[in-house]
Amino acid sequence: MSQPDTRHQTRMQRKKAVVAEKISAAQIQRGVFLLHTGIGKGKSSAAFGVLARALGHGLRAVVIQFVKSRSDTGEEAFFRRQPGVQWQVMGEGFTWETQDAKRDAAAARAAWETAQQALTDPAVNLLILDEFTYVFKYRWLELEPVLAAICARPPMQHLIVTGRAAPPELITIADTVTEMNLVKHAFQAGVQAMPGIEF
Amino acid sequence: MSQPDTRHQTRMQRKKAVVAEKISAAQIQRGVFLLHTGIGKGKSSAAFGVLARALGHGLRAVVIQFVKSRSDTGEEAFFRRQPGVQWQVMGEGFTWETQDAKRDAAAARAAWETAQQALTDPAVNLLILDEFTYVFKYRWLELEPVLAAICARPPMQHLIVTGRAAPPELITIADTVTEMNLVKHAFQAGVQAMPGIEF
Repeated sequence: MSQPDTRHQTRMQRKKAVVAEKISAAQIQRGVFLLHTGIGKGKSSAAFGVLARALGHGLRAVVIQFVKSRSDTGEEAFFRRQPGVQWQVMGEGFTWETQDAKRDAAAARAAWETAQQALTDPAVNLLILDEFTYVFKYRWLELEPVLAAICARPPMQHLIVTGRAAPPELITIADTVTEMNLVKHAFQAGVQAMPGIEF
Repeated sequence: MSQPDTRHQTRMQRKKAVVAEKISAAQIQRGVFLLHTGIGKGKSSAAFGVLARALGHGLRAVVIQFVKSRSDTGEEAFFRRQPGVQWQVMGEGFTWETQDAKRDAAAARAAWETAQQALTDPAVNLLILDEFTYVFKYRWLELEPVLAAICARPPMQHLIVTGRAAPPELITIADTVTEMNLVKHAFQAGVQAMPGIEF
């Protein structure tokens, strides 16, 4: 074998040892709380991608959409026909569509009732609370009881919360937090929301 | 109706008008190129979430994984049983696993051959090149012919590329770019890669 290949091999052997050490340091097995925030595209899509992954491992999942009211999305059409997932659209639409703060708040509280059921059910392996952060932005729900319910959920239950501007307390109790930053968006260049991509 | 409700309604009516104007300004319909980069979790998951969404609209998709070699992932198990998607694991594994730069480069070139077929096929509505940015980091492929092939793809074909450290030229030609920033990861706190969440 030529010299450069040997150098590469040695470097990769060292790297492998470092990676192996890190992996062996991570021994805890438990449900994780993923939080997808930021203003870029991908917060809900990443949750639905993990949902597909979880269903592939035979996990059972519940999805609750807190703001969305439309039921013509590709993700709903797709996941409604999959076994193992319960899909609930419980929002009333964007605040500028309803133009009714009381109705919005009542819808959020009803959705949270459903979420609380799931958060106490060990048969739910993965719970997705989509666009959930807005319940705090609009003050539809108090933060404290929500934090308590999340922390008291079954130990092996995974949770994903999506939405912009997550409160710092939510970031604190989450295990994995990704901030989806907007670098650019096709919409800014005049491209319509394309079916299959945006909804 | 009480005064606060009227104020809310007026504010939301104004907001709705602003949103409506932005939406009507976006009239172009075409395939979009989404790029998910950054070091946070969610790049591939967001691609798979969009895949679910696209399948829900009846689109046909091809997925090519450029680095991954394992075939025991939840996403693969899940999507392989869905109609409308062709799933190809064409990587050889992480560079520190193969420890063989020539083999890695040959695998990347073979995967790119397959990608090129898809990039010229108008029957492919969505193409996902997962962990594709690494082909440039490791210099397995030249950037210029890749950019040309992406720009020359069928006009209605959507493309998603994932991977850390996307080259600036790729960001330039992409329509929607999200940088997934790592705020924190469960792994850092000693939690194992959990099935259904990490793979």
